[in-house]
Amino acid sequence: MFDFTFHNPTKIIFGAGKEALIGAELNAAGITRVLLVYGRNSVVKSGLLDRVLASLKAGNITCSQYGGVDSNPLISHTREGVALAKREKVEAILAVGGGSVIDESKAIAVGALSDTDVWDFFVGKEVERALPVFTILTLAATGSEMNGNSVVTNADTRQKYNIASPHVYPKVSILNPELTHSVPLSYTAYSAVDAICHVIEGYFTKQPGTHLQDRLVEGIIKTVIETTDDLIMADPGHAQARASFMWAATLALNGLTPAGIGEYSFPNHMIEHAMSAIYNIPHGAGLSIVMPAWMKWYLARNPGQFERFAKEIFELDSGIAGIAALEQWFVTIKSPVRLHEVKIPAADIEAIAENAEGLARQWGIGDLYPRETIAEILRLAV
Amino acid sequence: MFDFTFHNPTKIIFGAGKEALIGAELNAAGITRVLLVYGRNSVVKSGLLDRVLASLKAGNITCSQYGGVDSNPLISHTREGVALAKREKVEAILAVGGGSVIDESKAIAVGALSDTDVWDFFVGKEVERALPVFTILTLAATGSEMNGNSVVTNADTRQKYNIASPHVYPKVSILNPELTHSVPLSYTAYSAVDAICHVIEGYFTKQPGTHLQDRLVEGIIKTVIETTDDLIMADPGHAQARASFMWAATLALNGLTPAGIGEYSFPNHMIEHAMSAIYNIPHGAGLSIVMPAWMKWYLARNPGQFERFAKEIFELDSGIAGIAALEQWFVTIKSPVRLHEVKIPAADIEAIAENAEGLARQWGIGDLYPRETIAEILRLAV
Repeated sequence: MFDFTFHNPTKIIFGAGKEALIGAELNAAGITRVLLVYGRNSVVKSGLLDRVLASLKAGNITCSQYGGVDSNPLISHTREGVALAKREKVEAILAVGGGSVIDESKAIAVGALSDTDVWDFFVGKEVERALPVFTILTLAATGSEMNGNSVVTNADTRQKYNIASPHVYPKVSILNPELTHSVPLSYTAYSAVDAICHVIEGYFTKQPGTHLQDRLVEGIIKTVIETTDDLIMADPGHAQARASFMWAATLALNGLTPAGIGEYSFPNHMIEHAMSAIYNIPHGAGLSIVMPAWMKWYLARNPGQFERFAKEIFELDSGIAGIAALEQWFVTIKSPVRLHEVKIPAADIEAIAENAEGLARQWGIGDLYPRETIAEILRLAV
Repeated sequence: MFDFTFHNPTKIIFGAGKEALIGAELNAAGITRVLLVYGRNSVVKSGLLDRVLASLKAGNITCSQYGGVDSNPLISHTREGVALAKREKVEAILAVGGGSVIDESKAIAVGALSDTDVWDFFVGKEVERALPVFTILTLAATGSEMNGNSVVTNADTRQKYNIASPHVYPKVSILNPELTHSVPLSYTAYSAVDAICHVIEGYFTKQPGTHLQDRLVEGIIKTVIETTDDLIMADPGHAQARASFMWAATLALNGLTPAGIGEYSFPNHMIEHAMSAIYNIPHGAGLSIVMPAWMKWYLARNPGQFERFAKEIFELDSGIAGIAALEQWFVTIKSPVRLHEVKIPAADIEAIAENAEGLARQWGIGDLYPRETIAEILRLAV
């Protein structure tokens, strides 16, 4: 165990139909004007937007709408959202969507209270305040509904960078697992990969010996695998599996599993962000390519933990067998494991490595991950 | 998975020497006058009180002191604390101690903002507000440092009752595991029993099928057993074990493990509170007597979960073997498992059962636990 501070003030309201409470929650917080941020038309077609608007109306809350958030949300679209939030003088941002919508909403919340360009906060400027963020989650994966992270892509500079700040923890997040029943199996698989990667980064890169946190991680991974199998092999609308998956994905990146583990890093995310900044592939699809490659490269650096992983998750005897089992599981759920599956040619590895280098430096792991090392890892995914 | 709301706003600051931050934390919250509540002289002798006072002084915080909290804190002492808090016009309560000190501090925080007798809140009056509570934890066991519970005993009525309210979550809790190095092995054992009981209540009394939460519970139990063995069998000052134990005990009752499990109950605590309201035995010592008895009685009502428990915790094949193994472990760590070990004669069972009945009703489990049933369970502990 190492020193830590844990402070996660987000209120989670979990259950079917709970989006109807959003008006009351905003009322309780004294909010009268919001910017409702969403992505594509699915939230309109599904009727969710209407239900949310009805709840806001019942709470006498004035609402401006801002749709069109991309998966891998863009700083250009974020900037327009900031301008709109300022123009409309909103008091809070209401995100209705998945991790991308929530991430962009957090960035808008920061930008709305700043006079400088919102991208500045992604390249080092400290966040000192933000409008309160409320969320209604429609895709379980990123954990953004209960953490202080926001990842946004700058298409001009090809940088997929992040904010990490206590000021952008959502005030209230509503998690209705029924909203995720219609998520396609491909995105269900990518989400599973993302949730597993969130806990694996710390699990393998920390010092050994924090067994409590190891057990929390293993419990989350087993749950994600079990529920994803239920959804993909059996029934995409399996209500219990969708619900357990949703909460597991939240716990995977809400600060619980790293509390007390000391220093750790996010090398798989670092490499994947560099990939999807260039190729705009789904984040989880990128991760299922990077993870087995990184694990093979990292195995010798922490063999005991890989052995533990193999035994606890797959009841296997060796670290390398555990890695192979995870890779095989990605294949089974149809998430890609090689670069060519997402049409990235091996010849582009150098460009990705070059792009990743800046992020590695920003995240303080530039020494362990110089450009050549990142390329070496990526070549294991050819 | 069932609907739930999870909202735990307590900020945890964990690590050696972190009590030195209390002044700065109070400053950050705008607090200028506190009531410092503690128990016996150990916090004075150890020098902890001086270090806390130095931090308060550095933060220009006026401090009134109120010592003498009992384990199994009393409403009479709480009432005097309330009067003092009002007289001194304090803005916050600072608890320096274990669960008893924190529980009484929460009650004082409630009473200080009320014109009615503070005991009213323990017998049904709703808590609508409370002074902010800050804590410096010296004994890991009850989880009170990160939840909204307070248990206080009324010696006149022989009722050990509780408040459960979002208003009494500590604002900041400082957890320095080094402060627990001097906890005697007996209390270390009782604390382990308490932490295990906190997670076992929901694990066995909920509906089956919430595997994620089962895994979180099993991870906590394994950690408590492993670290307690390290402390009791090997080295009472084992720093890593003290630290892991401390965080495990916090997670055991901070709302994490029951989130999503639906309805569940606290029968072991119900029976034990009735016992220690009369006999003033350590809470954990009472629980290690009640738990094996209750488990034997409850086994047939949820056999699958007891089988799971046996397998996951002790690698055993049957529910009854798992119960026996837990009871044997209590014996090994020298926590009592029969009533006569704490000098409660079998003839007093009826009186305890009568006392427990009121609490069973208050907690909504009166139908399942009428007086005769409670007596039947206790007879299994003779």
